[in-house]
Amino acid sequence: MSEKVLDRVIGQVRETALLQTSLAVLEWDERTGLPSSAGAYRAEQITLLSGLIHRRKTDPRLGEWLAELKESELANDPSSPQGATVARLHKDFERNTKLPVDLVKAISKAIVLGQQAWERARKADDWSQFESHMQAIFSLRRQQAERLREPEGTLYDALLDEYEEGARARELTRVFAQLRDDLVALVQELADAGDPPRGESWRPRMSLERQRAISRWIAEQIGYDFRRGRLDETSHPFCATLGPHDCRILTRFQEDFFPSGFYGTLHEAGHGLYEQGLPTEWFGLPPGTYASLGVHESQSRMWENFVGRSQAFWKWCFPHVQSMGDHAWDAMTADEVYRDANRVQPSLIRVEADEVTYNLHILIRFEIEQELIGGSLRVADAPDAWNQRYRDYLDVEPPSARDGILQDVHWSAGLVGYFPTYALGNLYAAQLMKAANQQLGDMDLALASGEFQPLLDWLRKHVHAYGFCMHPKDLIEQASQAPLDAGALTEYLRAKLLPIYGK
Amino acid sequence: MSEKVLDRVIGQVRETALLQTSLAVLEWDERTGLPSSAGAYRAEQITLLSGLIHRRKTDPRLGEWLAELKESELANDPSSPQGATVARLHKDFERNTKLPVDLVKAISKAIVLGQQAWERARKADDWSQFESHMQAIFSLRRQQAERLREPEGTLYDALLDEYEEGARARELTRVFAQLRDDLVALVQELADAGDPPRGESWRPRMSLERQRAISRWIAEQIGYDFRRGRLDETSHPFCATLGPHDCRILTRFQEDFFPSGFYGTLHEAGHGLYEQGLPTEWFGLPPGTYASLGVHESQSRMWENFVGRSQAFWKWCFPHVQSMGDHAWDAMTADEVYRDANRVQPSLIRVEADEVTYNLHILIRFEIEQELIGGSLRVADAPDAWNQRYRDYLDVEPPSARDGILQDVHWSAGLVGYFPTYALGNLYAAQLMKAANQQLGDMDLALASGEFQPLLDWLRKHVHAYGFCMHPKDLIEQASQAPLDAGALTEYLRAKLLPIYGK
Repeated sequence: MSEKVLDRVIGQVRETALLQTSLAVLEWDERTGLPSSAGAYRAEQITLLSGLIHRRKTDPRLGEWLAELKESELANDPSSPQGATVARLHKDFERNTKLPVDLVKAISKAIVLGQQAWERARKADDWSQFESHMQAIFSLRRQQAERLREPEGTLYDALLDEYEEGARARELTRVFAQLRDDLVALVQELADAGDPPRGESWRPRMSLERQRAISRWIAEQIGYDFRRGRLDETSHPFCATLGPHDCRILTRFQEDFFPSGFYGTLHEAGHGLYEQGLPTEWFGLPPGTYASLGVHESQSRMWENFVGRSQAFWKWCFPHVQSMGDHAWDAMTADEVYRDANRVQPSLIRVEADEVTYNLHILIRFEIEQELIGGSLRVADAPDAWNQRYRDYLDVEPPSARDGILQDVHWSAGLVGYFPTYALGNLYAAQLMKAANQQLGDMDLALASGEFQPLLDWLRKHVHAYGFCMHPKDLIEQASQAPLDAGALTEYLRAKLLPIYGK
Repeated sequence: MSEKVLDRVIGQVRETALLQTSLAVLEWDERTGLPSSAGAYRAEQITLLSGLIHRRKTDPRLGEWLAELKESELANDPSSPQGATVARLHKDFERNTKLPVDLVKAISKAIVLGQQAWERARKADDWSQFESHMQAIFSLRRQQAERLREPEGTLYDALLDEYEEGARARELTRVFAQLRDDLVALVQELADAGDPPRGESWRPRMSLERQRAISRWIAEQIGYDFRRGRLDETSHPFCATLGPHDCRILTRFQEDFFPSGFYGTLHEAGHGLYEQGLPTEWFGLPPGTYASLGVHESQSRMWENFVGRSQAFWKWCFPHVQSMGDHAWDAMTADEVYRDANRVQPSLIRVEADEVTYNLHILIRFEIEQELIGGSLRVADAPDAWNQRYRDYLDVEPPSARDGILQDVHWSAGLVGYFPTYALGNLYAAQLMKAANQQLGDMDLALASGEFQPLLDWLRKHVHAYGFCMHPKDLIEQASQAPLDAGALTEYLRAKLLPIYGK
């Protein structure tokens, strides 16, 4: 009986996924080369498809089927594919139907207006043009959180849960506070070092054509499958899934700054490897879906940083890039590149930050948005809180709102509770890398020979294969055989960076 | 009252157009760079969207509204935007609902199997593998024609009407017979000439990068608006409309054959100029839609051939291509290129044919498919009929089915009645060019200075602005102030080609 109902649910959800991936094609296309005059009509197409998708996701019949399944024996084991399917779809349905239509509409509208205002405010470097929109967005998201909040959770938890199921602000606060203290200290130690990398080795110009070839090559080397993907260019790199065998990555090349395209590719290919490793037979359903944004980010950071900024990696990679680079790197050495790939430099802008200070940028946002939702900070005071923390954690002084609180799109897009997943990704990646190193033996030997398959296989087995059948926290704890903790990341950073800085 | 109903209809159809153009994005993407493993899922996405579109197009409420409007005063003037909207949508609805579901399904299935069989048969150069599929397809299309046939029309007319509304086989037969006699004679005259072009000037290799830049440049020169379009690459060039401000063209470059990319671009940009010239406020509705496939083809042929293979055009264009071509054309002259652009050479393959013999390829297909539908020719005898006509009209002997009756995808895709629109395009273009020449004065002077705006303005005013508010035949007769006739095309070809061939 229940099996039949489950089949019906699965059929319905798979069909919805066909629409969602069609929408993803429209969005991918919008960001790769939509003619400049075509934006308004594309928005209409997207709105129509979004409406069709929403109607299917809130179809009362679906709710009835899911309610029935929730009480059936199929729901008994929530980490089995069937159990996870029932549990997650039921939760999704509840979330999609729990919010009053008026609130959903108000949020949509506030986001559209908010993003427009944010763009204007940022251009004009004028916080006051955005303040009232930020107020509206946080107030609406707070109302949403009140509806979705679970008995034992906070308001902020309810928002966080959408991106990182099961995460709790209390635990993150504890782990992040430790991370903050460790990293602030590390940044200070590095600043006092006598022999810092200068970041000059990236400077020789290399033609875009050569860079494209190198990016394609390195993505293939780490295992990204071009029969099931492609590499394109855009202004803000991303990774998009358009089907079970169609996960595309996008990067941005700069002639005079090699890491932009190269690390953009490694980062997005890391996301792509995760998507390509999910069980395709469950595509569009929880067992075929990524576990959380934090886990997703752990995969991109793994390949971008833990692999792509390691000494072993550059030992292997350097001569290849040199020979493909059309003489641009003739005067360089592997060691210079390795050192410059690990330059730590406190700065104002999150997306340009290095592996260490990046986390501090995130923690500042995490602390501020929690206080705003919790009510202990007013939106009007947010810029001061922002600047104060940049002074405290990074010892830099934002000279303007544009390079301060207005730099990110997230809040204007209604994304509250999203930022911490970036730092979680780094913590997860560190724990996974530590475990993989322990289980696979000397990883450096493999990386120094360009052998990435053992690491990828390990990730496939311990992370990718599970899809969204476990809470991300449980998944990472099981894979890394350790509880969530800042230690692994701090250890890894200190072990790598102090020798580079001559300490 | 009726206005309200019309508004409802227009709203419904505009929404359907949002889905149709979303589908067009999926198809464009499929043909520009879909990862090789992603085809099956893309087919599922397309099937789902097609189903949604079909359901909307056959919605009984739409039928009721249209039936009501058909009897209202809004239908009185069928060439007004409102009248054309009512008339065409009503006709569409009737066509979409007149056919029994079983027949529609049988046709869909026959086409899928037919195309697969055609690909196998073509690869194996074995007609017998396709024969039974061709039989099935023609038999089903005949059944369809019996349902759609109008009292005064033939079965073939009913099929033709789908691509070229109002066209009648009897009239086309008369005009095409004249064209055939004229062109067979012309080909013979040219074959006897003493100084034919040798086709050597296209041979110097030119890098794809240079060719891309030249193609983009020439498309811009003739007026194609890149804010509302883009130029991409594919294996079979085409033009796709994805929105009122998003009409994309695609071509195919070959390093050692310049005309492939260049004329592919001019041809598709001609289609694109038509789409960009349609009234955007009526997008998705008849007044914002092209009049017919024949009229569409007249626009592509206008720019590819009547402009792009003229002496005046090359006088202007040659030095530009030479200077952009990175020395590839250093040893050439404008006159050589002009002569080679007009080389006439009877051959086996339609898509590689020149401006003269192309029409004979079409007439052969037109005659055969008419006889097959009419019943005077059996499918089993079609290959013999094909080969006999190639001997008679083109004096060539198809050595195989692959280079003979199996060369085109159309019949396997169920497209019967489609081929004549290609030749109609050439006839229309000749009549339009003759009229434009008369009304605008000496066009050669403008073309020789790279001034294309006057011709484009003329086409906008006399063709594009009407959308699908008139029958294509009436539109062309009004614009050219002459009835459909082979004379203009024959005259134009003789006047251009005989001097080139030293006659």
